[in-house]
Amino acid sequence: MEVKDVLRAVQFAPEKMQKINLFETKNFFSDVYCLEPGQEQKVHAHQTEDKLYYVLDGCGSFVVGDETAEYGAQHLIFAPAGQPHGVKNTSQERLTLLVFMTPNPNFK
Amino acid sequence: MEVKDVLRAVQFAPEKMQKINLFETKNFFSDVYCLEPGQEQKVHAHQTEDKLYYVLDGCGSFVVGDETAEYGAQHLIFAPAGQPHGVKNTSQERLTLLVFMTPNPNFK
Repeated sequence: MEVKDVLRAVQFAPEKMQKINLFETKNFFSDVYCLEPGQEQKVHAHQTEDKLYYVLDGCGSFVVGDETAEYGAQHLIFAPAGQPHGVKNTSQERLTLLVFMTPNPNFK
Repeated sequence: MEVKDVLRAVQFAPEKMQKINLFETKNFFSDVYCLEPGQEQKVHAHQTEDKLYYVLDGCGSFVVGDETAEYGAQHLIFAPAGQPHGVKNTSQERLTLLVFMTPNPNFK
């Protein structure tokens, strides 16, 4: 059975936000994003892919469309296809996110 | 911004496992599954859809393919397209799962 202990996959780095892939098929990828205080995923958009951010730990400042708001653990943030989106760790604690993206733009 | 407080969406019922939809597009749906002790999602298969179960709380007995195993909080279980899969709460505590399925077979 293909199973990941998500929190054991977590890895932070001082240079930049870490993305650790857990699973992927042509339909999706699932990553863990690990953001030290001040680190970010810059605002960007995908024309055909939907993204979900689930906050595992910490608190992040999320951008979707023209809105910016802070969310903490147990919140699921939806960035629909075509909408600019990003996340920054504006807190003093580490931020850990479980991320789903569908379909998978990296799958060849 | 479209955001859900996942644990606030949780609802249990004595009759059967509850599925609460959080988001859906043609690309995916994301649900919370809430299983009282003894409740289950029977083993079934989807020919073209991948499913992920993320254990939020409690412990479940998962079937994927010809394997059965128990996993608790922070584990992400992958049921690839075509593989029989299901979950039963064989514990004495409530089981809560964040579920992601892609693409969305219900989307018309």
